[in-house]
Amino acid sequence: MSDDAFQHVFSVPLHDTDAAGAMFFAHLFRHAHDAYEGFMRAIGFPLDRMVREGTQHLPLVRAEADYHRPLRHGDTAWVQLRPAKVGNSSFVLEYRFTDDCGEPYASARTIHVNIGPRGSNAVPLPEGMRSALTARLTDRQGESPAQQ
Amino acid sequence: MSDDAFQHVFSVPLHDTDAAGAMFFAHLFRHAHDAYEGFMRAIGFPLDRMVREGTQHLPLVRAEADYHRPLRHGDTAWVQLRPAKVGNSSFVLEYRFTDDCGEPYASARTIHVNIGPRGSNAVPLPEGMRSALTARLTDRQGESPAQQ
Amino acid sequence: MSDDAFQHVFSVPLHDTDAAGAMFFAHLFRHAHDAYEGFMRAIGFPLDRMVREGTQHLPLVRAEADYHRPLRHGDTAWVQLRPAKVGNSSFVLEYRFTDDCGEPYASARTIHVNIGPRGSNAVPLPEGMRSALTARLTDRQGESPAQQ
Amino acid sequence: MSDDAFQHVFSVPLHDTDAAGAMFFAHLFRHAHDAYEGFMRAIGFPLDRMVREGTQHLPLVRAEADYHRPLRHGDTAWVQLRPAKVGNSSFVLEYRFTDDCGEPYASARTIHVNIGPRGSNAVPLPEGMRSALTARLTDRQGESPAQQ
Repeated sequence: MSDDAFQHVFSVPLHDTDAAGAMFFAHLFRHAHDAYEGFMRAIGFPLDRMVREGTQHLPLVRAEADYHRPLRHGDTAWVQLRPAKVGNSSFVLEYRFTDDCGEPYASARTIHVNIGPRGSNAVPLPEGMRSALTARLTDRQGESPAQQ
Repeated sequence: MSDDAFQHVFSVPLHDTDAAGAMFFAHLFRHAHDAYEGFMRAIGFPLDRMVREGTQHLPLVRAEADYHRPLRHGDTAWVQLRPAKVGNSSFVLEYRFTDDCGEPYASARTIHVNIGPRGSNAVPLPEGMRSALTARLTDRQGESPAQQ
Repeated sequence: MSDDAFQHVFSVPLHDTDAAGAMFFAHLFRHAHDAYEGFMRAIGFPLDRMVREGTQHLPLVRAEADYHRPLRHGDTAWVQLRPAKVGNSSFVLEYRFTDDCGEPYASARTIHVNIGPRGSNAVPLPEGMRSALTARLTDRQGESPAQQ
Repeated sequence: MSDDAFQHVFSVPLHDTDAAGAMFFAHLFRHAHDAYEGFMRAIGFPLDRMVREGTQHLPLVRAEADYHRPLRHGDTAWVQLRPAKVGNSSFVLEYRFTDDCGEPYASARTIHVNIGPRGSNAVPLPEGMRSALTARLTDRQGESPAQQ
């Protein structure tokens, strides 16, 4: 990932750890989503407004994560977020979790689909959102043909 | 509390514990709320329907808990829930958390106020809910004068 | 999946939903892990004991989920859990989330690796755990050659 | 509270809200605890080190909160934390949650007791921690007689 990925940082709080001593795996997705919220705000599409106004619904249809080593209580984790693919009505986001030295903790991916007000069918992404996402693609190969 | 309190049971999952080895205190309130959801369903006022239809909003205005000893991963906890007070537009619920032998882990209290569709002012509890709650009072001293 | 999958059931509580009206995606993994805890107990390897005694550490190295339709507040969800693959030092679990009629909500997969007391290197699964998992494989093709 | 209270700030993420549209009440305690972690680090007693080394255990014996108005998705909340009382083996912390203009959302209190390595009996607070807490008391009336 290039230097211009969106960055989010957090410190592992006690309540994210479990009795086995490390961060409970599912919480990684919560932090990924916090990064996603920050990213969407940064590109002009704050989730809170979209949820409140019901203009766009971008539910996840897939989430996945690979865990390389445990995150411990008090660890600082940096999240680098970049779109990996932008389609007509969906997009893929990639997250890299690293420590202060850039050593990886974990990576994750989420796939979001835009659904209409009825909340059932995929509808095209708003053009502004589509170009904002495309402009931040890791590389231009993530663009769908329709975008070119 | 008498034997006819509403009962809810759960087993402490790994994700409720923290690196210090016991249940993180805030999760007790999540389990109290699970008991509250079960109780409201049992007395004919399922929260999911009320939230979905927006008919009643019963937000908490106060929550408190006393922790007597740690809940550990795998522990079975019984929650006994009883209304302690039913007012005109609000009610108080009490929760006792005990182990299989009835030995206490913790206790909690929540205070709920009914607010109107605008979501700002306290409005009287629906009569049906008020009587359902009153019928389950720990003792009759919890009734507000207006109820008599 | 056949009828003899391990079953876990839950009702979607208010605190699992978000302002967009459905279950926040990351919570699916919490419920998957609850099913996993129940499963491990059922086959004789309760996690709480393993965590407490430090005998086995089975951290996740991968988690993934596909979301087919939203889980709403109050929905009952059934989780069917089956091992999909059992290796020398790792295993793959599959989870199907369905409603009362068997219609799918979501599916998930987790990959667990056994690590030694030092918590760094993969070590073989204890033989008893390995056979218990293998006996519950969806089909025998999930067995690693070493197992045959 | 005076200006020199410890400050913690957060933005309400989607996963803290529920289907009723506001922050689920129990999450307030999670944020209070995040503020507490930051505070303890600031006064030289980072929780992660204490938990890891097992030197001090400061479990909560009581937690309470009053909710004045809902926290919504995207709201910025400031937490002001101050010790309200410092005893021989316990202390009380107070938290005020306000918006950008200082208007209150909620307030909370937690009571912590120091327990020995066996994890059962109250033991005196380490002298360094006691004086660090006392120095930040809202007013000097929170000191226990033994402190004077």
